[in-house]
Amino acid sequence: MPELQRTPERFSTAEYERRLRQTRESMAKLGLDLLIVSDPSNMAWLTGYDGWSFYVHQCVIVGPTGSPIWFGRGQDGNGALRTVWMTDDHIIGYPDYYVQSVERHPMDYLWATLADKGWHRGFIGVEMDNYWYSAKAHERLLAGLPEAQLLDATGLVNWQRAVKSDEELAYMRRAAHFVERMHRRIADKVEVGMRKCDLVADIYDAGLRYDEGVGYGGDYPAIVPLLPSGPDAAAPHLTWDDQPMKNNEGTFFEIAGCYQRYHCPLSRTIFLGKPPKEMIEAEKAVLEGMEAGLDAARAGNACEDIAAAFFTVLDRYGIVKDNRTGYPIGLSYPPDWGERTMSLRRGDQTELKPGMTFHFMTGLWMEDWGYETTESIIITDGAPELFCDMPRKMLVKA
Amino acid sequence: MPELQRTPERFSTAEYERRLRQTRESMAKLGLDLLIVSDPSNMAWLTGYDGWSFYVHQCVIVGPTGSPIWFGRGQDGNGALRTVWMTDDHIIGYPDYYVQSVERHPMDYLWATLADKGWHRGFIGVEMDNYWYSAKAHERLLAGLPEAQLLDATGLVNWQRAVKSDEELAYMRRAAHFVERMHRRIADKVEVGMRKCDLVADIYDAGLRYDEGVGYGGDYPAIVPLLPSGPDAAAPHLTWDDQPMKNNEGTFFEIAGCYQRYHCPLSRTIFLGKPPKEMIEAEKAVLEGMEAGLDAARAGNACEDIAAAFFTVLDRYGIVKDNRTGYPIGLSYPPDWGERTMSLRRGDQTELKPGMTFHFMTGLWMEDWGYETTESIIITDGAPELFCDMPRKMLVKA
Repeated sequence: MPELQRTPERFSTAEYERRLRQTRESMAKLGLDLLIVSDPSNMAWLTGYDGWSFYVHQCVIVGPTGSPIWFGRGQDGNGALRTVWMTDDHIIGYPDYYVQSVERHPMDYLWATLADKGWHRGFIGVEMDNYWYSAKAHERLLAGLPEAQLLDATGLVNWQRAVKSDEELAYMRRAAHFVERMHRRIADKVEVGMRKCDLVADIYDAGLRYDEGVGYGGDYPAIVPLLPSGPDAAAPHLTWDDQPMKNNEGTFFEIAGCYQRYHCPLSRTIFLGKPPKEMIEAEKAVLEGMEAGLDAARAGNACEDIAAAFFTVLDRYGIVKDNRTGYPIGLSYPPDWGERTMSLRRGDQTELKPGMTFHFMTGLWMEDWGYETTESIIITDGAPELFCDMPRKMLVKA
Repeated sequence: MPELQRTPERFSTAEYERRLRQTRESMAKLGLDLLIVSDPSNMAWLTGYDGWSFYVHQCVIVGPTGSPIWFGRGQDGNGALRTVWMTDDHIIGYPDYYVQSVERHPMDYLWATLADKGWHRGFIGVEMDNYWYSAKAHERLLAGLPEAQLLDATGLVNWQRAVKSDEELAYMRRAAHFVERMHRRIADKVEVGMRKCDLVADIYDAGLRYDEGVGYGGDYPAIVPLLPSGPDAAAPHLTWDDQPMKNNEGTFFEIAGCYQRYHCPLSRTIFLGKPPKEMIEAEKAVLEGMEAGLDAARAGNACEDIAAAFFTVLDRYGIVKDNRTGYPIGLSYPPDWGERTMSLRRGDQTELKPGMTFHFMTGLWMEDWGYETTESIIITDGAPELFCDMPRKMLVKA
């Protein structure tokens, strides 16, 4: 074999072993003998595996002892060889005739593999509510593992990821560098008449190109740029078209920088022309609410404290926001850069701990306009650390 | 409400009604009273819905009569209002406290909605093996619909999409224009020492920017650029890093142009330096095999005929490719630009029909190198139409 040419492993083996230990402790609490991890972010966090192969069934198996096992499509085994920290005998590939077949299912190969290892009994955790663990996958595993009991372990690994290590925070700071560069580029380029697809090309350019000053380049974010204008900005998840930017419209830019799959999202709003009074009023409320929320964002408080502080200010201004105001961030693959554990909303009593990272998502989507200015933050014992240094106020370009 | 500002609907209402009729005919064959469609590509094909909201539970309901119903997160209802062809009363949003909650599940809201309409009985089709229909979603629907029988309708809508309308082909030709531009840009820019992340920025630029000559701009492909080099090219699904391109390495570029969510994938390989003899030999086999495969790609033949023609040539050259050699393409959202119905492989006897479109995926991933040159094609009664006009041979840059 020629020497592998991937960039060095993202984390030390010691860090991966710590993650594995932590995961096994959580498994023990639930009484799990085995864990099947289908979420690509969780797979990467446990093993380092990286590749756009999650459109076929694959998983990481955390058995009772030893290193995790990568399980996937045979042809992706080469990608696993190049990216995981485990030795090569921890990579199991299934034949290609299992792919998108109506007669054969990759989960049939999985249960047979587990049986070979004597791992087909006892309590097995599966990520029941994950994109990458379909109803059919579950049905086939249930049928193939009659001596096992499959238990819902959705979020088990996601929760382990909540507090970031220093190495992870370093990657996220690099991602922050890119999202700042993206917003500066937007502010510089956007103008009436500019085609939105051209602006998106500029956003990708700023998010990806190698920065000689800092010595690294960018990765693809788990969500594409969202930048609806005018009344379309009432919808939070529209992408773009090839039409020109118009006068007297506001556009929010919900984007993230990404480095080694670690994300730093940040949103800002730009108005071309003269913003209406209600938007200026709303901005005042949001900016004040953000200060209140950031003030509550410290170790020992709960997720809901941030939300309550923010929503209290909004209420005072008579603004109704009926959705959550943030979520944890870090390592992610499409379709989401959130970690899908806690939420910054009323009723979520999860305690904030130093090293947790959140996208404080204070966006407003009203009936015929939208406004977003957000911060990505690190929880500390004192005031939160902001990943980015970027004015929050809407940029108005005449 | 101010006037909506989205680009005009992608297709005429007549086309959407035809799609709906066709889907209902297939439902009738399976004895389905109702169909729940979770795949965003299928949702878009039936309703026009567009938005990066598939990271939360959502679906389209095809009931026994009337237009389809969009069901999703409340805040995404604004996006549905702006993109679907149905009237506003066909949009149902669930409250935000159902999102990523451990106590409440959006499928609980769905079955309650179905019950309200009296649609909670009989035979209901669900897409069992789809990323967007999780094991948990199925469990909750099963629990909430005791009077219904849930049947597997994976692929039901996907199969309706197989033969493209002229309007769809027109969008795919526009996507082809972009992928040609992307490959030309790569050929122009790539050189030893160029950072891979910079090359990716150029690829996005060529895939997105408005082309004044033709009068349109690009959309995001369902898969990010794949461009592994040297021994990493043995792995088909690695993305990129920020390291410089090296001398005496081959790189394949697996990319797609995209327009209005319609895709045209195309792969080419570039070698910087002097390619090894085995790669040149393999290329000879692939090019000859492609000619044989294209010759077999005509209406009346079967999927397996294309595969057999191609693999027979490869066998003669002693090259083993143990994976399928293509799949249907068209409208797609992440994580896959394939349609997940037929495959170009031995044993797939699906009849080829005029207007079917395939990515004839003839890539080779060997132990320590990879090579890809592919074509996207339209089946006709005669020779297939190639979407792109791009030399197939590996580009060698000294």
